[in-house]
Amino acid sequence: METVIKIACQDEKGLVHKITGILFQKLLNVTRTNEFVDELTDHFFMRVSFTGTCDLAALRHELFAVLPANATVEIVPPVTKRVVILVTKEHHCLGDLLIRSQFQDLPFEILAVIGNHDTLKPLCAQFQIPFHFVPADGLSREAHEAQVHQLIQSMRPDLIVLAKYMRILTPDFAANYLGKMINIHHSFLPAFVGAKPYQQAFDRGVKIIGATAHFVTDDLDEGPIICQDVTPVNHTYSAKEMARSGKDVEKIVLANALKIVLEDRIFIHQNKTIIFD
Amino acid sequence: METVIKIACQDEKGLVHKITGILFQKLLNVTRTNEFVDELTDHFFMRVSFTGTCDLAALRHELFAVLPANATVEIVPPVTKRVVILVTKEHHCLGDLLIRSQFQDLPFEILAVIGNHDTLKPLCAQFQIPFHFVPADGLSREAHEAQVHQLIQSMRPDLIVLAKYMRILTPDFAANYLGKMINIHHSFLPAFVGAKPYQQAFDRGVKIIGATAHFVTDDLDEGPIICQDVTPVNHTYSAKEMARSGKDVEKIVLANALKIVLEDRIFIHQNKTIIFD
Amino acid sequence: METVIKIACQDEKGLVHKITGILFQKLLNVTRTNEFVDELTDHFFMRVSFTGTCDLAALRHELFAVLPANATVEIVPPVTKRVVILVTKEHHCLGDLLIRSQFQDLPFEILAVIGNHDTLKPLCAQFQIPFHFVPADGLSREAHEAQVHQLIQSMRPDLIVLAKYMRILTPDFAANYLGKMINIHHSFLPAFVGAKPYQQAFDRGVKIIGATAHFVTDDLDEGPIICQDVTPVNHTYSAKEMARSGKDVEKIVLANALKIVLEDRIFIHQNKTIIFD
Amino acid sequence: METVIKIACQDEKGLVHKITGILFQKLLNVTRTNEFVDELTDHFFMRVSFTGTCDLAALRHELFAVLPANATVEIVPPVTKRVVILVTKEHHCLGDLLIRSQFQDLPFEILAVIGNHDTLKPLCAQFQIPFHFVPADGLSREAHEAQVHQLIQSMRPDLIVLAKYMRILTPDFAANYLGKMINIHHSFLPAFVGAKPYQQAFDRGVKIIGATAHFVTDDLDEGPIICQDVTPVNHTYSAKEMARSGKDVEKIVLANALKIVLEDRIFIHQNKTIIFD
Repeated sequence: METVIKIACQDEKGLVHKITGILFQKLLNVTRTNEFVDELTDHFFMRVSFTGTCDLAALRHELFAVLPANATVEIVPPVTKRVVILVTKEHHCLGDLLIRSQFQDLPFEILAVIGNHDTLKPLCAQFQIPFHFVPADGLSREAHEAQVHQLIQSMRPDLIVLAKYMRILTPDFAANYLGKMINIHHSFLPAFVGAKPYQQAFDRGVKIIGATAHFVTDDLDEGPIICQDVTPVNHTYSAKEMARSGKDVEKIVLANALKIVLEDRIFIHQNKTIIFD
Repeated sequence: METVIKIACQDEKGLVHKITGILFQKLLNVTRTNEFVDELTDHFFMRVSFTGTCDLAALRHELFAVLPANATVEIVPPVTKRVVILVTKEHHCLGDLLIRSQFQDLPFEILAVIGNHDTLKPLCAQFQIPFHFVPADGLSREAHEAQVHQLIQSMRPDLIVLAKYMRILTPDFAANYLGKMINIHHSFLPAFVGAKPYQQAFDRGVKIIGATAHFVTDDLDEGPIICQDVTPVNHTYSAKEMARSGKDVEKIVLANALKIVLEDRIFIHQNKTIIFD
Repeated sequence: METVIKIACQDEKGLVHKITGILFQKLLNVTRTNEFVDELTDHFFMRVSFTGTCDLAALRHELFAVLPANATVEIVPPVTKRVVILVTKEHHCLGDLLIRSQFQDLPFEILAVIGNHDTLKPLCAQFQIPFHFVPADGLSREAHEAQVHQLIQSMRPDLIVLAKYMRILTPDFAANYLGKMINIHHSFLPAFVGAKPYQQAFDRGVKIIGATAHFVTDDLDEGPIICQDVTPVNHTYSAKEMARSGKDVEKIVLANALKIVLEDRIFIHQNKTIIFD
Repeated sequence: METVIKIACQDEKGLVHKITGILFQKLLNVTRTNEFVDELTDHFFMRVSFTGTCDLAALRHELFAVLPANATVEIVPPVTKRVVILVTKEHHCLGDLLIRSQFQDLPFEILAVIGNHDTLKPLCAQFQIPFHFVPADGLSREAHEAQVHQLIQSMRPDLIVLAKYMRILTPDFAANYLGKMINIHHSFLPAFVGAKPYQQAFDRGVKIIGATAHFVTDDLDEGPIICQDVTPVNHTYSAKEMARSGKDVEKIVLANALKIVLEDRIFIHQNKTIIFD
């Protein structure tokens, strides 16, 4: 596995030269470099991956020395990311992730699954993944979220995945996990925000349906988009058949988004994402 | 070419048997039959195409005799459809249609092009298609539409195609052409209704953009959808580059929708379309 | 669930009328009818689905009475199909099918999984599906196939699914299961037949890879195609990364093909398939 | 417009640092940089675009000074590329390119069109593009190619586009234009090489058809692939309808490939292409 350096800062001439100079001096075995400058905001983004070892604290120090003020430098060591998954009743995304986890198709470890229903507890048991049932009945939204938040905190995950977690989150809850929580929305956002997107799609008579994986922000369904994909439908599809067909798109889009995030190939900039190959 | 029969009515048992009985009796050379029942509304749709001649008035009469009350029967003789195209300044959809018309890629005749700008007049001249410049400057929306409407009426087209006609239509104008006017909208509806969809798509940071061909109704961007398609984009695309990339989707989606309508393979039912192969 | 009638015969005028006449007389609650005439061979195909009960033997008898000689009539009662899955070492297709089976996403029952390696035995155990290990070591191809065939026969499945079963089949073995055995090939056939299609795709430098689900015939990779899909790749993909990306296409294409076959929406005609919505 | 630097060489540590050092020293306004290392061959590729002026000869000299032996450095000034198009009878790709040229959708100038039939002469006349009719009747393949080659040479184009030029080229002819001649093949290569790919696709019963734009080499249909795309078909498509549907894919794939080449975003490495965003 590789160590990844992610740099973001105001653009200025010579940044690539200066940054690669530091890497060259240390004789790092760089496996890939990517840069992008966002012209609208004149912001610079660079990702470098390398194999081998290196004093990461010193590296960070040297990088900051050549970067403009307010630069952010993230150095991600080659450690498997630890993930908590939140679900409600639908199994298709969770099932797909459990299989991928067990066979190491994706570089992650599932610490636990938290459900506001216990429907998927047996599925988790089949994969020997802890399932925590946190029912919301009789609780205020805030009280329920507090329980979920405490549980998540106790596991210290790197990432939280909402795998068809059908609860509306309060902005306060979401704010705890900015850039660390991924959701899969069952529509081609920004079409059909909110509840029952397949019913909405059916009612509107669209000819293509889709799914969107995005980071969660305090604004429901409005966070930075990571991946989207679509599949054709036609007049013979009921809303239920659209949902069935869409589920396959959902699970693949979520897995693709998760792969990008796990491989640290993504930057969030304002409300958008920059994704390197 | 083929004659097409399009039947729509309340569903009841035995409809296909009765209808095909009439066709069989007349020994028509049926080339394709398609049926569909919309379960929500219990509505029946059937399309039959046949070659050869037949007393169409008698056929219609016999069909009505076996159909429930309030059935609609459309019998479309094998006559090339006559089309008027409305444009503003963008050339890509018009250019594509002019080429397809000249080489008979699609079964239609372009009677004329009407523009609220004269930008595309030379392009029409290259293809020897009449261009009518109807400027809107200094006119109320209604007054301008009245001129356009009068011009259209004088040509008696079967179909009107809005090939990037960038004027908002009044409900009254649209009401003149229900089921006879197709628009291409430069987004994956219902995402990004209204103006500047590519700028909207850029601002939202979507990873896929699209285009939608739909029948025009009195409700802007809300008419029955005929065709949609999409193309991937990423963070390196400016709004302008999204627009450029989207133009290819627009012209192909419009041509595909036009083909379906020209071949009478479409029914409008409530605010949706039923499209047969 | 529905009973399905599948009729195939030489085309002649009036077939739809005669067939629907029988259904109408019996007052069957027809839910969908589809017809297609293959012009090249003048062959007629019809599928009718209906709910409710009916004397199926009598129905078949009456249908044959109005059909041309050599017609085939298949009447499929609403019974869940029983499937045997063959695998080697790869888990992605099997995992996907096990999840779909457990949650009844597809109308089938997995009787057992047979593997020429025992790699996937634990996965089957997690889903409480019997796994039969039939190693090929030291056996002739024919001797190994005889064991597999005997095992399959003992379970009397309706369908056999090769979910990345990486053995070349003898024509004799394949001949036992014509129209009843589905394979997923990891390329966009007919590109890259044979072994290591992803390596072939990598070597050729293609920009899109795909997968193909097809019926197995005695001609390797040449059977009637049911479903295909593709996904883009680029120069940054190694052969291994193409394979990883292709696996998701494979499992979805296989599931889509299986759905079509389980719902009896497919006809095999010569070496092609006719698939109704 | 931008000046583009394309560097390819054996990989070694520090290349990016050294190259960007030269650009930084000259205070060039770099608009985008991309690098890629092909791991199999340990080959390094870098593209830099910049605006503004600079002594290009000196730049080249300085770059070579820091690069390994046998490096190639291409510096492409911001000059519109001059293109010759070869056609036979089909109009769809040519028509699309003529429209794009007239409206400057792509940064190129069409010097002339050469046809082995004169079918498309009137279309070129509509766009005031010279058309050269070079009939092959009664000529050996070599004699015909000699005429075409002489004509091309007289115009000194930067690029030759085979826009459905339906002649098999001799290896000698192709060798004149390595890396400078693009072909659009009407199949999803390597499926259906050679003649009549749509008929082949129809006969095989595929569910998706496609098109491939590639550089021409001395090996027919085997050159480095630039772009590919596909579109779904089904059993209702005749071979002719597949061809009609495929034409839209062909013209868009060709235009996309041409855009990449015109923007100098492509490297040919062995028999593959590296394409930067």
